Amino acid sequence: MAQLEVIDPVSCCTPVIAAALDEERAMGTAKMFKALGDPIRLRLLSMIASATGDGEVCVCDLTEPFDLSAPTISYHLKILREASLVTSERRGTWVYYRLRRDNLGMLSGLLAVPGVDELAATPA
Amino acid sequence: MAQLEVIDPVSCCTPVIAAALDEERAMGTAKMFKALGDPIRLRLLSMIASATGDGEVCVCDLTEPFDLSAPTISYHLKILREASLVTSERRGTWVYYRLRRDNLGMLSGLLAVPGVDELAATPA
Repeated sequence: MAQLEVIDPVSCCTPVIAAALDEERAMGTAKMFKALGDPIRLRLLSMIASATGDGEVCVCDLTEPFDLSAPTISYHLKILREASLVTSERRGTWVYYRLRRDNLGMLSGLLAVPGVDELAATPA
Repeated sequence: MAQLEVIDPVSCCTPVIAAALDEERAMGTAKMFKALGDPIRLRLLSMIASATGDGEVCVCDLTEPFDLSAPTISYHLKILREASLVTSERRGTWVYYRLRRDNLGMLSGLLAVPGVDELAATPA
């Protein structure tokens, strides 16, 4: 499982609206945002993130919704894994993916804007 | 000011952990994440986001912290503006930047993971 360096929990989670990011932190988190900066990867991540049951998704269930080859899907999943946004485990024929909730939550906290989330969560 | 299409407030703000993104929504938000997927742009955004006072930052104050030319900084700011993450206004010699709080908050909501933010907000 690819891992980024261990992120200091204090500075990692200060929203950008509260303090400017230092260079090192920007390097670590930009890699994660870059991985999210593709519509296919964003949809794959959202399919893994919203998996019900045990929160695990077989790669065999991630290919069908896309008009793309299995190797292309695997390539995008590898980028999500290398950015520490998902973990993967091979069992027999298939690879199973699971969300890194800690890192997704960390990115969410980084972009948090006081007052805006609350409004968005209450659609008219 | 560059703008993405108007985003439906209901589906835009459902966290990916609750429901998979559709293709159209993924296209719109991937552009924003891609803009954040570079350490220079992430630092620029965080400097604009954390601006005190009237929340506005002059481009003349955004160049000094970087060992980069003014045109390079302007190029990165243009990408942030085209992704609707900041707005810009020229007044006299300088361009002034301001955060799009609505869109940053929307991205934060999209990545929100119940329970993780709260933990992150309470460093040990």
